[in-house]
Amino acid sequence: MRSALNHRLVIHILSFLLIIEAVSIYISAGVAAIYNPVQLEEFGLFKADGGFWPLITGATIALITGVLGWLLTFHVSKSVTKKEGYLVVSLSWVIISFFGSLPFYLSGYFPSFADAFFETISGFSTTGASILTDIESLPKGLLFWRALTHWIGGMGIIVLSLAILPLLGIGGMQLFAAESPGPTFDKIHPKVKETAKRLWGIYVLLTFVEMAMLMLGKMPFFDAICHSFATMATGGFSTQNASMANYSSYIQYIVILFMILAGTNFSLHFYLLSGKASKVFKNEEFRMYIGIIFFSALIIGVGLITQLGLEAEQAFRDALFQVVSIVTTTGFITTDYLLWPPVFWLILFMLFFVGGSAGSTGGGVKVTRILLLVKNSLLELKRLVHPNAIIPVRLNQKPVPQNIVFVVISFFLIYLTIFSFGVLILVAMGIDFISAVGASASSLGNIGPALGSVGPVENYAHMPDAAKWFLSFLMLLGRLELFTILIIFSPTFWRK
Amino acid sequence: MRSALNHRLVIHILSFLLIIEAVSIYISAGVAAIYNPVQLEEFGLFKADGGFWPLITGATIALITGVLGWLLTFHVSKSVTKKEGYLVVSLSWVIISFFGSLPFYLSGYFPSFADAFFETISGFSTTGASILTDIESLPKGLLFWRALTHWIGGMGIIVLSLAILPLLGIGGMQLFAAESPGPTFDKIHPKVKETAKRLWGIYVLLTFVEMAMLMLGKMPFFDAICHSFATMATGGFSTQNASMANYSSYIQYIVILFMILAGTNFSLHFYLLSGKASKVFKNEEFRMYIGIIFFSALIIGVGLITQLGLEAEQAFRDALFQVVSIVTTTGFITTDYLLWPPVFWLILFMLFFVGGSAGSTGGGVKVTRILLLVKNSLLELKRLVHPNAIIPVRLNQKPVPQNIVFVVISFFLIYLTIFSFGVLILVAMGIDFISAVGASASSLGNIGPALGSVGPVENYAHMPDAAKWFLSFLMLLGRLELFTILIIFSPTFWRK
Repeated sequence: MRSALNHRLVIHILSFLLIIEAVSIYISAGVAAIYNPVQLEEFGLFKADGGFWPLITGATIALITGVLGWLLTFHVSKSVTKKEGYLVVSLSWVIISFFGSLPFYLSGYFPSFADAFFETISGFSTTGASILTDIESLPKGLLFWRALTHWIGGMGIIVLSLAILPLLGIGGMQLFAAESPGPTFDKIHPKVKETAKRLWGIYVLLTFVEMAMLMLGKMPFFDAICHSFATMATGGFSTQNASMANYSSYIQYIVILFMILAGTNFSLHFYLLSGKASKVFKNEEFRMYIGIIFFSALIIGVGLITQLGLEAEQAFRDALFQVVSIVTTTGFITTDYLLWPPVFWLILFMLFFVGGSAGSTGGGVKVTRILLLVKNSLLELKRLVHPNAIIPVRLNQKPVPQNIVFVVISFFLIYLTIFSFGVLILVAMGIDFISAVGASASSLGNIGPALGSVGPVENYAHMPDAAKWFLSFLMLLGRLELFTILIIFSPTFWRK
Repeated sequence: MRSALNHRLVIHILSFLLIIEAVSIYISAGVAAIYNPVQLEEFGLFKADGGFWPLITGATIALITGVLGWLLTFHVSKSVTKKEGYLVVSLSWVIISFFGSLPFYLSGYFPSFADAFFETISGFSTTGASILTDIESLPKGLLFWRALTHWIGGMGIIVLSLAILPLLGIGGMQLFAAESPGPTFDKIHPKVKETAKRLWGIYVLLTFVEMAMLMLGKMPFFDAICHSFATMATGGFSTQNASMANYSSYIQYIVILFMILAGTNFSLHFYLLSGKASKVFKNEEFRMYIGIIFFSALIIGVGLITQLGLEAEQAFRDALFQVVSIVTTTGFITTDYLLWPPVFWLILFMLFFVGGSAGSTGGGVKVTRILLLVKNSLLELKRLVHPNAIIPVRLNQKPVPQNIVFVVISFFLIYLTIFSFGVLILVAMGIDFISAVGASASSLGNIGPALGSVGPVENYAHMPDAAKWFLSFLMLLGRLELFTILIIFSPTFWRK
């Protein structure tokens, strides 16, 4: 039994990911070249060009680093243990975000490196929080790379949540595993690969269908691609300053539909495509997910009609769009929800702590966890009345092992603890209470828009650099189900 | 086996408590008579007098009701099951508060019955939230009854938390039980009685010692009694509009000391008095309790010196007083903490979710529960690294059964859920977000002062009646460890 950490393997895998990233940035440079004629003499004064040179430079740095790392660790034992699993997952998001931020930083459109990094990790973590005050002024190549970070991040997350995290036993994810866990990764490596292919197939398919449907609604090709990337990843970066507000109601309904699909467990899409629709509609998480969305939208919709005098169709569309956008942790907006009567944005804020379904690209706590928490809380009362009976929580008719319920509850508590200390740290940095509450919850839940000075029609530009780094960390924590990151900071992890 | 609910017994016990309450109100009427000469012709126009007639009338109504209920259920089976236990505990606080509010309501000093009831349940639940805008204008008889509601409430709580709730298995209270739980109450009835006597002895003793020490600091006799009642119950009703702000620093230090003692597990006082001091200082909950207090006070104290330029002694005294007052859930104040830089009142607000020690008169979540939560969260990481090892949480060197940790975590989650929906309901009633956050946390934690329009130098007078009823309910929920009340609303409870 080998127990020392296989550093070479970690570097090997990360290098491989860097090479893939480099290719993606080169593609974005291609997009830049198509939309803005490339002028050679502008290499060096990046600001003036269409994003081509910063993208080429960033891609090349990533490529050289990746190839070097890959070659230097070419002869490596391929045996992976959980420890390498944690390290690869955590570091990959950090490394990819670091190199991915180079084109932004070099372009001159981002005031500081903290800004560029914030935007990039916000992309890869599918958060969608932005520091840009005028998105439309960015050249198309950079906007494309920005949208692509979402799409790549979403791809990573599906495989992570359905194939990798369950093996690591993170936060009760075993429950939603596509495969059964084993002692090491080796044996199920082919299985993970197959699962990944299948899930990515669905992901790519849905992205193209959305793109086509958006174009049917007369959205330009470029915006349709970028918005489809951002929707399927439940990201939220838009190419427009007004996000989705100025689009037709047809387009808004299409986006609502695809946000809902992106926030659904991708295993269910697979069942649906295999003709097992009944399995989907019997799934308790899916029922609760749909239930939360329509119940919240109904309450808010009625409120917008009676209290703001909105016309019914618009009221329910506004309510539904915002609710779906928050629950799925996408973060597109069509209206400034902070102008609603307080109780309605408060309902929306409570949804910040729900999140998408497990095994979707959505972030946050996840609907299954909330479902288990609610069921367990109700059973606690039953257990008090019948102290000697063993009353397990049931999910989809099956009893859930007590230790998994336990892990799920612990996860939620740690989530709330991090949120609270997040607020405290942001307030200590001089940010007002409401904005701090919003920013902490929004970053940890990978949502994007928040409250106060970081509300839906605002952005994160005015935050101090320290806050941007801290929020970047919260996005990473939330995206990787907390434990993946926290475990690396625990002394036991590094002990032999 | 009898399984039907013994309604007669419930009424019998409640009637007995009502008779005790009646006697306490008569005593308050006696105080009224001493300080304000009783004028017979003022019976009927209650407003003008010194509180004597409202008190006499309220006491008499309580006495007649109590005696009637007691006599009508005189022949009753004394066998008590857990179900009767839950009902008696829940109803006693409601019934006692209802009858206890009659003198306030009849006196004319309280604008509505909702106000009078709010003030009374705030007293009995040892919360200390007040709707009075000019406390000093109240006659001494009513002020005495107001302080006495705290003291009686505190007496009830000590016995409840150390002798009765553990038997009911509420929220992990088994851990802190003075006696081991049994299937019915009957067998341990003598033990509960003995435990109660011992704990009350300590409670009464500490009250008198505090009173004497306050009088040494030149506090008038009447105020010394009332403040001692309010301190030992961790209540917070003062006889002064400025709470503790205008008293000497000697008096403030004395109050700090006795708040700390009141927020300590009363079993530890018993150990201390029996000469087992080492047992006290080895107690992990006590160490954490003291640790939280001094660590928070240190941070805030340094902040007040550096950021507000306060002189060192005053800075640390202000910090310590407010921290102790919030952690112990007393709610006395010496300064308006909302004028501190936001990060410092936010630290204070986070302490709203800690609460006193288990088995003290303090409310809130309780330090032991927080301790278990923290320990368990840290162990979760260890469990991830060693998935096959069984790693129990240890408290005072002993492993805590997994199911108790589970109940404790569930308790905390339900607590936070009620807090959140509390905020939502208050905001729906038209209360601003910050005040709603403060009021919900403060009422549930039985603290008193909160944030925003119900901050430390404000009061609850301006709240709508609906909010006063709702906050009364939250005080009751928090005081009775949630489950005692919630279980009564569960269908299983009423099923045979």
